[in-house]
Amino acid sequence: MNKSNNRYYTIYGINGCINFLSIENNYNIKSINICKNGQAHKNGDIIHQINKLNITPNILDKELFNSKFNFKHSQGIVIQFSGLIEKDISKKSFQENSCLLIADQIQDPQNLGQIIRTCECAGISGIVLHKHRSVLLTDTVLQVSQGAFMLLDIFIEHNLVNTINYLKDEGFWVVGVENSIKSKEWFDIDYKGKIAIVVGSEGKGIRELVKKNCDFLATIPMKGKINSLNVSAALSAILFERQRQLSKSK
Amino acid sequence: MNKSNNRYYTIYGINGCINFLSIENNYNIKSINICKNGQAHKNGDIIHQINKLNITPNILDKELFNSKFNFKHSQGIVIQFSGLIEKDISKKSFQENSCLLIADQIQDPQNLGQIIRTCECAGISGIVLHKHRSVLLTDTVLQVSQGAFMLLDIFIEHNLVNTINYLKDEGFWVVGVENSIKSKEWFDIDYKGKIAIVVGSEGKGIRELVKKNCDFLATIPMKGKINSLNVSAALSAILFERQRQLSKSK
Repeated sequence: MNKSNNRYYTIYGINGCINFLSIENNYNIKSINICKNGQAHKNGDIIHQINKLNITPNILDKELFNSKFNFKHSQGIVIQFSGLIEKDISKKSFQENSCLLIADQIQDPQNLGQIIRTCECAGISGIVLHKHRSVLLTDTVLQVSQGAFMLLDIFIEHNLVNTINYLKDEGFWVVGVENSIKSKEWFDIDYKGKIAIVVGSEGKGIRELVKKNCDFLATIPMKGKINSLNVSAALSAILFERQRQLSKSK
Repeated sequence: MNKSNNRYYTIYGINGCINFLSIENNYNIKSINICKNGQAHKNGDIIHQINKLNITPNILDKELFNSKFNFKHSQGIVIQFSGLIEKDISKKSFQENSCLLIADQIQDPQNLGQIIRTCECAGISGIVLHKHRSVLLTDTVLQVSQGAFMLLDIFIEHNLVNTINYLKDEGFWVVGVENSIKSKEWFDIDYKGKIAIVVGSEGKGIRELVKKNCDFLATIPMKGKINSLNVSAALSAILFERQRQLSKSK
C-alpha cells in the first residue's frame, strides 16, 4: 500500500470546493486560488466557508488564473491540498450491514468520480481500488466526485483476491456484477449483512480470478438493444436495491 | 414542433458508430470519415459494417482528419448524417406498461446523453425534451448516448404541462422525481401500467407548475452527507426498480 503523504491534490469547481471546505477533514490546505470577479468570487457560500477557516485566498486576475489552472470546469476556484486520502483496510472494523465496493479495472476517471459520488449517496462504507489496474485519485476523479471522496473510506490494494479473502474472513459476502449463466437477477440477491460488491471495467468486466472468488454473481438484464449499461448507472441500480431491501427489513 | 429535416448530425467514437451503422434506421449518411491507421481504421467491426452498407468512407491522413474533426473522443471515426430524429407524440399509440421520461430543464449534454443510454437499457419507450429549457440533440449528446438515440422515441415539446395532460388522457400516471414532504420513497410507487417519469435539472429540480401536474412524487433519500445524486444515477435506480416490479408481477 502506498502511504506516501507528500503529493498535492487539486480540487476545483464550486460544489466540490464547498463540500471540501465545509466537511471536517484532516487535509492541509496549501492554497485557495480564486479568479477575480469569476463565478466562485461572487459566490457567498464559498466566501463564507473560506472566512470561517481563516485562510487568505489568492485572488488572481483572470489571465493569470487561466494560465496557472487550465481546468475546463474550475468555475473560478482551485484548491490545492495535501494529506492521506487512502485508508488501511486492516485497521477498519466493519459493522453489520456494512457495504464495500471493489472496483476492478475502472480506467475512466469520469466513471470513477461518478461511482464515488453514487456510493456516498447510497450510504456505503468504502471503495477498494486496484493499485495498478484502476485509475487512482486523479484531479478529475476528485472533481467529479464533488467532495464525496472525503466521506467514505478509499482503500488501494495490490491484490484484489487477497482483499476478497480478507473480507470473507471479516464476515462479508461477495457479489460480482457480471452477466453469466450463473448470475441471478440483481434483485434476487440478498444485500443485507456485510456485503462487498465487485464491478469490472466497461467492456472487459471483472477479471476471471477475481470473479471465481465471488460468492454470487448478479446481472441486470438489458431491456433494449444496446448491450452495456454504463458501470456507474448499473451500480446505482444495485446500491439502491440494497437500500430498498434494508428499508423493507426494518 | 420543429420538424426541420435540413441539418446534419455528427456521431463519432467506435461504439456509437458501430451501433449507428448496425441498427436499421432511415437516416441518410452524408459521409463516413476515418483517420488513416487510427483506432477505427484498424477495427474489424467498423470496416465490416461499412462494407455491408456499400459506402465508400473518406480515409484521411491524421493531420487532415484532426483539422476537420476536433472531437476529443472521436477514436478516428466521424459520421455525418441527416434525417428526422424526433418523433410526433400525437401519432404514437402506447401499449400497456409503456414508460416515458419527461426531462425538464436538463442542461448538461453529458447528463442527457447518459440519460438516453440508461433509458434505452431499461427498456422505456421514449423521452420528452422541452424545446427551450433543455439541451437538445447536440453532437455530444448523440455521442454519449452511444447510438441509443435511435432506439427509443425522442419527442421535443413546447409545453410540458400540455404534454403531461395529453399523456394523462392517454392513460398515463405521472411520477415526478422530487424531494418534498409529499414525496414517497421511490420503491413505494407502483410503476406498472403506463407511467411517465419527470426529472428536473441538477440543482433546480422540476419547475413548480410541472410538479403540480404530477400524480405522485418520488424521492430517493440520500444516505450520505452530499445532497444530490447525479440525475442520471437517480433515474437508473428508479427505472430498474420499475423493471424489478414488472418482473415480480409476471
